[in-house]
Amino acid sequence: MITKKEIAEHLGISRTAVSLVLNNAPSSTISTKTRNKILQAAKGLGYRDIELTPKLCFVLYDRDANDPRYMADLQIIESEVSRFNYGLVYMNITSAPESLKKMQKILANQEIEGFIIAGDVDEKIVDLFRHSNTPYIFHGMPLQDKENCLNLVAFDERKLAFDATEYLLSLGHTRIALFMGSLDYHIHQLTLEGFRQAHETNGIPLDYSLIQISNDENGYELCKRTKMLQLNYTAAFCANTVIQFGALQYLQSTGISVPHDISLIGSGLSELVKVSSPQLTTYYVTLEEKAKTVSKLLEIINNRNHEGTFSSLITNFERFEGGTTAPVKQ
Amino acid sequence: MITKKEIAEHLGISRTAVSLVLNNAPSSTISTKTRNKILQAAKGLGYRDIELTPKLCFVLYDRDANDPRYMADLQIIESEVSRFNYGLVYMNITSAPESLKKMQKILANQEIEGFIIAGDVDEKIVDLFRHSNTPYIFHGMPLQDKENCLNLVAFDERKLAFDATEYLLSLGHTRIALFMGSLDYHIHQLTLEGFRQAHETNGIPLDYSLIQISNDENGYELCKRTKMLQLNYTAAFCANTVIQFGALQYLQSTGISVPHDISLIGSGLSELVKVSSPQLTTYYVTLEEKAKTVSKLLEIINNRNHEGTFSSLITNFERFEGGTTAPVKQ
Repeated sequence: MITKKEIAEHLGISRTAVSLVLNNAPSSTISTKTRNKILQAAKGLGYRDIELTPKLCFVLYDRDANDPRYMADLQIIESEVSRFNYGLVYMNITSAPESLKKMQKILANQEIEGFIIAGDVDEKIVDLFRHSNTPYIFHGMPLQDKENCLNLVAFDERKLAFDATEYLLSLGHTRIALFMGSLDYHIHQLTLEGFRQAHETNGIPLDYSLIQISNDENGYELCKRTKMLQLNYTAAFCANTVIQFGALQYLQSTGISVPHDISLIGSGLSELVKVSSPQLTTYYVTLEEKAKTVSKLLEIINNRNHEGTFSSLITNFERFEGGTTAPVKQ
Repeated sequence: MITKKEIAEHLGISRTAVSLVLNNAPSSTISTKTRNKILQAAKGLGYRDIELTPKLCFVLYDRDANDPRYMADLQIIESEVSRFNYGLVYMNITSAPESLKKMQKILANQEIEGFIIAGDVDEKIVDLFRHSNTPYIFHGMPLQDKENCLNLVAFDERKLAFDATEYLLSLGHTRIALFMGSLDYHIHQLTLEGFRQAHETNGIPLDYSLIQISNDENGYELCKRTKMLQLNYTAAFCANTVIQFGALQYLQSTGISVPHDISLIGSGLSELVKVSSPQLTTYYVTLEEKAKTVSKLLEIINNRNHEGTFSSLITNFERFEGGTTAPVKQ
């Protein structure tokens, strides 16, 4: 691509003159002859004025490469960004100092108009954005006690666990296990809360022995454990599809039929849901709902002088029917 | 962010004057007084010169949102692009006319210096890039008969199938099934070729009844089929991890032990490989190898006036040990 500088060098005239002519700037200091010479050279050398597309950026924070949840989010966000005639820059950022420094540099540069941050967000990245004056939204993660001081779109994990558990109750299940990860994570605390509330609301006593936690979120091991503990249940809510899928593999390998003997319901719409046989039954946030983060960010960009922060909690979930739930056996 | 235009409006002077001063362009037409007024206003209004980061673009062509293979590729490519102080723009493009038009517009715009295209590439997207004068590389896909007229980095699927099959042979397996997708796809033709050559090279006769094809790449169904056909085999090479994983689920649900009774080997390092119990044994291209596409693209960008195209075939694969292969039972 030929630059203005190269045109100036080619013609042996000043770069300013080339700039003025090619930018159509009004100027009486450049003769018609020079102007025509510049325009001809620009045409001859294939100069094109570059129209910069305004940019938003999707930051994936502290996640492994192979988590497919974020690919789906990235795709829907790119489509939406492009519908608004923006381009989307993609960045991996980790909590390593040099990576955070890279983020800081991009923020200072101000080339990008706004940021959507997904992944395992921590205080470090939160601080970076809170103290910048660049528009941003944290997307998809529950951030404890942050609702009033950050721009965020969170998914209501409590409500999702409530809905999924209530669906199992509606199928006649009353002994429902809960398979989840460490309660050190806010998301799992919310899941437990929703699970508990669904029992309470429906007047079904909750047997706490059916709540099983695996810090490494190993569904296979969790499900194996319930057998060794001789726990008696007809359905389980699994906090994510990786846990659900591990549980399914364990049950299948021990000859227990899903959903005939045990129903499994989970959370999310990852690749696993569809490649599994039977497909997994899950509750999930629709792509349409996730796409709304983009228009929210553009609103923040356009109202950036306003005080205050924006937060939104997504509480509507769809059910992917799959084949891992059935009415309780009579 | 304050623009030059806004500074000009604020001061009631021409945009050209503001541009000349803020770009440090030599000019005798602007007084020192005006120059200082502009510089002060710029400082006061918080103007910053935006340094544009040069950009490359990762195009994901015609793929569903939930395919995790591309997330890993995108991440490694972003890291590498950023190591070279470039930014990475991400785009989904499909074969729909309006989507191809969007691609064409971005190409014409010339804002992005080079493109890496992954996904299910077809003639439409190939033509678009071949007839543009923007640097590009098609990344990862085998493109039949295109080696001489396109820039591409391909993975040698024939060699991968050869290596994986030879590994099974080295474990003493001699009756090896091949589970794969439609032979309409070049990639599956290459897989078949590698599978065949490994048998030939090792003097093991190939039983063509063990080659089973599923157009929808359903490994569960493929494996079930071999049972109904009463085929006798001790190991299988699966053309991808989705097929391999479906086969594993079928075998587990029918009480056949993997790898004790049947070994399964596959291709690729997707999320499935690691969430499965046992983890899947596969051959794969390392991230380091995939990252090289970026420096190749930068070479093309820096030598863009040279004639000819660049193509590279990756023939080195690593084995992810996993737990789905074992020596043949004596």
